[in-house]
Amino acid sequence: MAFINENYLKLPGSYLFAEIARRVTSFKDENPTADIIRLGIGDVTQPLPAACIQAMHTAVDELAKQETFRGYGPEQGYDFLIEKIIETNYTKRGITIGKDEIFVSDGSKSDCGNIQEIFGTNNIVAITDPVYPVYLDTNIMAGRTGILTENGTFEKVTYMPCTAENNFTPELPKNRVDMIYLCCPNNPTGTTLSREALTEWVNYARKNESIILFDAAYAAYITEEDVPRSIYEIEGAKEVAIEFRSFSKTAGFTGTRCGYTVIPKTVTGRSQDGSKHDFNKLWNRRHTTKFNGTAYIIQRGAEAVYSVEGQAQIKETINYYMANAKIIREGLQAAGIQAFGGVNAPYIWLKTPNNMPSWDFFDKLLHEVNIVGTPGAGFGPSGEGYFRLTSFGNKENTKRAIERIKTKLKF
Amino acid sequence: MAFINENYLKLPGSYLFAEIARRVTSFKDENPTADIIRLGIGDVTQPLPAACIQAMHTAVDELAKQETFRGYGPEQGYDFLIEKIIETNYTKRGITIGKDEIFVSDGSKSDCGNIQEIFGTNNIVAITDPVYPVYLDTNIMAGRTGILTENGTFEKVTYMPCTAENNFTPELPKNRVDMIYLCCPNNPTGTTLSREALTEWVNYARKNESIILFDAAYAAYITEEDVPRSIYEIEGAKEVAIEFRSFSKTAGFTGTRCGYTVIPKTVTGRSQDGSKHDFNKLWNRRHTTKFNGTAYIIQRGAEAVYSVEGQAQIKETINYYMANAKIIREGLQAAGIQAFGGVNAPYIWLKTPNNMPSWDFFDKLLHEVNIVGTPGAGFGPSGEGYFRLTSFGNKENTKRAIERIKTKLKF
Repeated sequence: MAFINENYLKLPGSYLFAEIARRVTSFKDENPTADIIRLGIGDVTQPLPAACIQAMHTAVDELAKQETFRGYGPEQGYDFLIEKIIETNYTKRGITIGKDEIFVSDGSKSDCGNIQEIFGTNNIVAITDPVYPVYLDTNIMAGRTGILTENGTFEKVTYMPCTAENNFTPELPKNRVDMIYLCCPNNPTGTTLSREALTEWVNYARKNESIILFDAAYAAYITEEDVPRSIYEIEGAKEVAIEFRSFSKTAGFTGTRCGYTVIPKTVTGRSQDGSKHDFNKLWNRRHTTKFNGTAYIIQRGAEAVYSVEGQAQIKETINYYMANAKIIREGLQAAGIQAFGGVNAPYIWLKTPNNMPSWDFFDKLLHEVNIVGTPGAGFGPSGEGYFRLTSFGNKENTKRAIERIKTKLKF
Repeated sequence: MAFINENYLKLPGSYLFAEIARRVTSFKDENPTADIIRLGIGDVTQPLPAACIQAMHTAVDELAKQETFRGYGPEQGYDFLIEKIIETNYTKRGITIGKDEIFVSDGSKSDCGNIQEIFGTNNIVAITDPVYPVYLDTNIMAGRTGILTENGTFEKVTYMPCTAENNFTPELPKNRVDMIYLCCPNNPTGTTLSREALTEWVNYARKNESIILFDAAYAAYITEEDVPRSIYEIEGAKEVAIEFRSFSKTAGFTGTRCGYTVIPKTVTGRSQDGSKHDFNKLWNRRHTTKFNGTAYIIQRGAEAVYSVEGQAQIKETINYYMANAKIIREGLQAAGIQAFGGVNAPYIWLKTPNNMPSWDFFDKLLHEVNIVGTPGAGFGPSGEGYFRLTSFGNKENTKRAIERIKTKLKF
């Protein structure tokens, strides 16, 4: 008799974006002429950089001829891409990363979700609260948590609240934690951790032999010079940190799928007998056993992001989105709503007026001004009373949305 | 202190193809002028179908314009592809499969590797022996096995030997098994299971509430009319079977990456309290949490496989490979070597002369006639004394290789 993985039964029924879709559909059914503006889901809208388009056309043509055809590539990714990643994102910032410390994948969601497999199930997981739900959900599935309690937290998980009160900087935990998920710039709050805060985390991890799982999917949006682009800018991080990067938001690859994980060979964990083991080696085994490499065409597209033209093109698109972020942030402030983020990230995190619950504010925004955003409570209990707007829409709609909030929303 | 997943330490050190690469490199270093012909790794060599090339160019262009740009797609795959899959591979064969019973992915290796996650860790795994190593390795990683014993088998796993003696048809196990991996046509033996044998398995699974994990990656190579293309051709299979399909060998997508998994909603497992749960729902949760969809460009390429031109083009390529298979099979037989498979699969499985150990035969073939194949022992203990050749090379080289075996190999 086949038994199921019962950890899945601990997962709450409805996924955040599915519930949003349900409410929007229901609203549209009742109000078929409503002019809805979506500032909700974190998906890009601008086309791919011309350099990527050209590179992918060339790659497609290569697959049409026997002499240039490519079958299985290295599961870890092609050198042509890995070398460009290292040069642009690490060497130029004074960080030394080896070619066999980079693992190209079909995107950060896969990597962030799969990375926990190489860890023991008894590790204590720490997550900032609120945060991207994949870290927690995948650890629930793997059995590293207890059940959902009445206060909205899972047993055995260490939640680190990040709210306006602590300037969205998580406190070092009082209990021992083993796997620490940090998302910086943070999804959903759009805030970043300072060099000092990150240094404290690296020092904590070194002292406690914890591992920092550092999701830098939004690194390309950082504008302030003193915010680290990579955790490896912090001394000692190469001993304790695994970093996730993505082309999704950097270059519009949400539907094109490419990301990568960095695991320095100096990052180790222990087996029960106390001996040390390289996580790089374990991940290599996982990656080569359960994954067969990212499509050649896509890797050529990703490579083109690092060309001179590609870098200029992604910068232009990021500037476009960040101009939207400024419109949202300043518009909210003008409307008397407290807003965070939006400077080093495409996300604006607002405090709901009068401490209104997130889902009530969602309904209010949808019904009164026909704008779809994302309830903060969907990202963790400390997201309650907050709300996320994103800058991935087009400028015209973003302006119209903010104008509506300023002129029509009553609170 | 972060602990590792110690199950990884149970895995044997060297992966089959890495060891082959090592031996070939070493031989080449000593014999730099040797004219090596590779009939080893199962990678395709012919270019992609023209229909796929054209479709992917169109898709790339769509991503270049805002009006046609695609961001995140459904994690389960686009309907345009799913509808074609159902129509061509199921409806036309009299099988009813719903759109929400198909999950498109980046390839069968991912699916075959990840599927075990939705099963409890106490299930008993049954694998045919020899077989594609991913089934076993991923269950070792998940902790469903004990350690490797001296006879080359893992504790707690039920091995079902498939050798010339039983016509490569696994016997029903005597102990209870919960998860049954069947690969048909089989990699590496190139043999298939008859309708009668598959019916026995489906009946066994229904009786014991086991699940059949049916890997049909090579279904497109079946030439004999009475061999089922899908497990769902067998009555009752929709209650107990999950099927994996791939575009890798069907359409040359080994470096382009697309596959899909079929999970009928009638396939259920139990929780410890005895209640039933749909595996479709569990896999949907897994797929939407840890995967963000296959690249749009690639899905458009896969869709084109089902066009009239695409179907004709893949048939031509498959015929090309199968002509090679015939050359190999008949050549081996002419050389006095017993050969199996190669009729409904691109693999030929030969019995080593004089019962020579597989790796010895590998070295003999490499050194005496400069041909690279794959040692049968690498696919499981019952593969010992066998050897795999593949028909994915070009015709000229395949002919030359067989000529060398016929005229120069001494045994």
